[in-house]
Amino acid sequence: MTNTVEMWSVRGVFSLTGRVRHAAQQSNLSRPRGINAQRRGAKVLTLDTMNPNVKKMEYAVRGPIVQRAVQIQDELNSGTKKPFEEVVRANIGDCHATGQQPLTFIRQVLALCTYPELLKDDKFPADAKDRAERILDDCGGRSMGAYTESGGIRVIRQDVAEYIRQRDGFESNWESISFSTGASESIKSILELLNTTGPNGEQTGVMVPIPQYPLYSATLAEYNMFQIGYFLDEDNHWSLTNKELQRSLEAAKSQCLPKAIVVINPGNPTGQVLSKANIQDIIKFAKKEGLFILADEVYQQNVYAEGCEFHSFKKVLCEMGKDYSDVQLASFMSTSKGFMGECGLRGGYCEVMHIDDEVMLMFNKLNSAKLCSNTHGQAAMECVVNPPKPSEPSYELFTQEKNDVLKSLRAKASIVKETFDSIDGVSCNAIQGSMYCFPQLDLPQKLVDHAKSKNMHPDAFYCFELLENTGLCVVPGSGFGQVDGTHHFRCTILPQEEQFRSVMKRFETFHNDFMKQWR
Amino acid sequence: MTNTVEMWSVRGVFSLTGRVRHAAQQSNLSRPRGINAQRRGAKVLTLDTMNPNVKKMEYAVRGPIVQRAVQIQDELNSGTKKPFEEVVRANIGDCHATGQQPLTFIRQVLALCTYPELLKDDKFPADAKDRAERILDDCGGRSMGAYTESGGIRVIRQDVAEYIRQRDGFESNWESISFSTGASESIKSILELLNTTGPNGEQTGVMVPIPQYPLYSATLAEYNMFQIGYFLDEDNHWSLTNKELQRSLEAAKSQCLPKAIVVINPGNPTGQVLSKANIQDIIKFAKKEGLFILADEVYQQNVYAEGCEFHSFKKVLCEMGKDYSDVQLASFMSTSKGFMGECGLRGGYCEVMHIDDEVMLMFNKLNSAKLCSNTHGQAAMECVVNPPKPSEPSYELFTQEKNDVLKSLRAKASIVKETFDSIDGVSCNAIQGSMYCFPQLDLPQKLVDHAKSKNMHPDAFYCFELLENTGLCVVPGSGFGQVDGTHHFRCTILPQEEQFRSVMKRFETFHNDFMKQWR
Repeated sequence: MTNTVEMWSVRGVFSLTGRVRHAAQQSNLSRPRGINAQRRGAKVLTLDTMNPNVKKMEYAVRGPIVQRAVQIQDELNSGTKKPFEEVVRANIGDCHATGQQPLTFIRQVLALCTYPELLKDDKFPADAKDRAERILDDCGGRSMGAYTESGGIRVIRQDVAEYIRQRDGFESNWESISFSTGASESIKSILELLNTTGPNGEQTGVMVPIPQYPLYSATLAEYNMFQIGYFLDEDNHWSLTNKELQRSLEAAKSQCLPKAIVVINPGNPTGQVLSKANIQDIIKFAKKEGLFILADEVYQQNVYAEGCEFHSFKKVLCEMGKDYSDVQLASFMSTSKGFMGECGLRGGYCEVMHIDDEVMLMFNKLNSAKLCSNTHGQAAMECVVNPPKPSEPSYELFTQEKNDVLKSLRAKASIVKETFDSIDGVSCNAIQGSMYCFPQLDLPQKLVDHAKSKNMHPDAFYCFELLENTGLCVVPGSGFGQVDGTHHFRCTILPQEEQFRSVMKRFETFHNDFMKQWR
Repeated sequence: MTNTVEMWSVRGVFSLTGRVRHAAQQSNLSRPRGINAQRRGAKVLTLDTMNPNVKKMEYAVRGPIVQRAVQIQDELNSGTKKPFEEVVRANIGDCHATGQQPLTFIRQVLALCTYPELLKDDKFPADAKDRAERILDDCGGRSMGAYTESGGIRVIRQDVAEYIRQRDGFESNWESISFSTGASESIKSILELLNTTGPNGEQTGVMVPIPQYPLYSATLAEYNMFQIGYFLDEDNHWSLTNKELQRSLEAAKSQCLPKAIVVINPGNPTGQVLSKANIQDIIKFAKKEGLFILADEVYQQNVYAEGCEFHSFKKVLCEMGKDYSDVQLASFMSTSKGFMGECGLRGGYCEVMHIDDEVMLMFNKLNSAKLCSNTHGQAAMECVVNPPKPSEPSYELFTQEKNDVLKSLRAKASIVKETFDSIDGVSCNAIQGSMYCFPQLDLPQKLVDHAKSKNMHPDAFYCFELLENTGLCVVPGSGFGQVDGTHHFRCTILPQEEQFRSVMKRFETFHNDFMKQWR
């Protein structure tokens, strides 16, 4: 036991591995089943005998600070006095949980599909009914309870292809689109397809931005693949330079077989939006180095900054013409983000390009052994990619609800950046897109040393103090990766505006006091 | 190319690997993207360079015979004359697709959760509304669009625990219950936790019944684990003997590190229901050999035969007392089967027993990196484990709909078994439970030789001919595993009674003619 706990300590409390150590200190979290009461010798599955790759995984977004936030909210609910009245959850892109409302049309269509008796009900608009009929016509037995084809309901895949065609101006083949349980599952499947071991035991290398969304580091650990971190340039709006791509790749070549590059655009946790020139450079780099591109484009509808525009990798790759037809691409989309924020429905898809038919059959086989993704996630995506048209009764309300969400996100993107940036010892790039910012903290050396003596990342120490004093829950930068010696945190722009304005005031007071205390 | 196709041929058309070969012969299926039109040299992901474990996977239930069935139905729809009017899909346990109706209460609750505006609607019964409120109260922002905790919505996990307690008479801890996207995902996660490589490169061995549900063989191939097949005793109602367990384990010990045993009860594809004594024997065997038990109990509500009863492994293990507290167990349940048949909703959970806290935290971490399972699957499970009570308005309809489904399945279990068994050259065990039978075919040697000369499994050859002549789509036994030299097919009992009776007549005529032809 001691041994294992020590191993965890090295990783610090901000890994989920570290969560174990933290949980072990919180008796109410840690002992659902009594460890000591049981004989242990004969058990086949123990911490020592289990899959070591799963042990290595870390997933900061749902780490111990979130568990502490839940406890604090429970304490508040049961009457404990705190310097704040509620916990503000800015740790995860969970839109509806922070007050965003679902779009009426999406929910009407889903309700109609779920309980077709409602198709007789006058309260539902005709276009929502037509849409539900369109979906049900393509479901076995006209039921959301039937398995779909492994790749998804055919008519929805066709509508996704049409959405992509209109977005990019290039053809999209519906058979290249596969639905999954959230985009995460597609991302994992593509990484799994790429994963091999070299003739001398080399791991498959995947280039990942630093800072990155921890799904990537977690999955690479789970699959025993090699993470090649390339740093985004914080001084330059978190942009991506070919020089850094080349540096990181060269440094890794002796340690693995590099096969792929992940790009998150708009960025998570960094909020930047890539220019077309930047994307062209990445594609050229991928061609030169023989890398598969995973384009995480789940925030494609979340672009706020003047002069910024979303360019899909698919479009830019098509524009680059036949010379690039050996550059392979998978692009990912989700119902969880954008203006809909339907995280719990777990809708997602990927579109692949330049994949040989035989490989596509293998990908379909991998999906078919999971049977299919859930029908409600697919149906929600249908409403997103094929929204009501101007002539249809739901158009006006849909457009208004969509614009309201995006307008509010745009406003909060400004408030949050400006507030953080105006505070001494905090600097924050503009939030050009996505739902996050990743401000840098200039922490006093005394605090850094103190945190390290407690085996904590300094930014983790800061974030815990922030939570205890203001109720604001954010994720320490160490969970995403950052240049050594720098300190950050990720903050979503999702809490409602009023709540945000009030917590931002508490943030400023806390920060100034805290810096004074440690200077 | 030639090389690869030859490799596939060896595996025969009834693997999904084989599907490639089959598809290559069907030009309309095989060429969504032009193979030859593209440069291939520089591509990083090809059939030669991809993950070899994914290539090895086979998944018969969605194999080429199903693709042919789809084509035949399309031909019928466009006016082609056949000796039958429709394809009868008895290849997959897809209840709603074959005409089973969803339960009203389940769909009402899901519609209310999806579109809470309906909570004001008088047409919905009060208990459905209460249930929806109960679920929404535990969702972030009272929305099905919020992420749930990784293990699932808390109140639903608590209701699952109560269902298990009432079923078994032993406590169940809600924290030991984790939701997943269908039971398949939980099964895969538990296998992943168990997977390690031994000090000399040994694979982790998992005992799997033969015949088995192909999720197991597919996942073991995907994870590069070792399948230890133990044969079910066809002469004895597909029961399971300790002698065979021991034989298969001993034979495998030199080839792998055995760690787990899978038991499917009620059986898929074999339809048997294990006696309590049989389960006790398996648990004793698992204890003696240090094996983790995976109890696939997704058909726990599907028991038809007089004198048969479902006994959960959890209950039997609890009854065996403290001496067995080192026997580790995971039990799986699904919304896809039972009386609800909600396959497309992808609801599933597993309950684990005797797992150390630290391992449980690792399991939760693995789940949390996928964020959560979909909310509709969870909400459907809530209705299954916590049905309306006698005092509530939906009780009567719910009970009637449930009983109608189970009564119809019971009736079809008899029809199907009796029809098959009455035909010369076919023998079929009683369908005690689940939704399948696995009849044996006594095929003439001339046919066997002919099929082999065409590189096909003889039962596959038979099933294709059956499909072409009768419209009945079943899955060849070779996709599930069988004693060498025997031939079977799996047939569901899901098609509607009238349809079944008529296709069974065509089956008999076909079979007699076919046997005459080849004798």
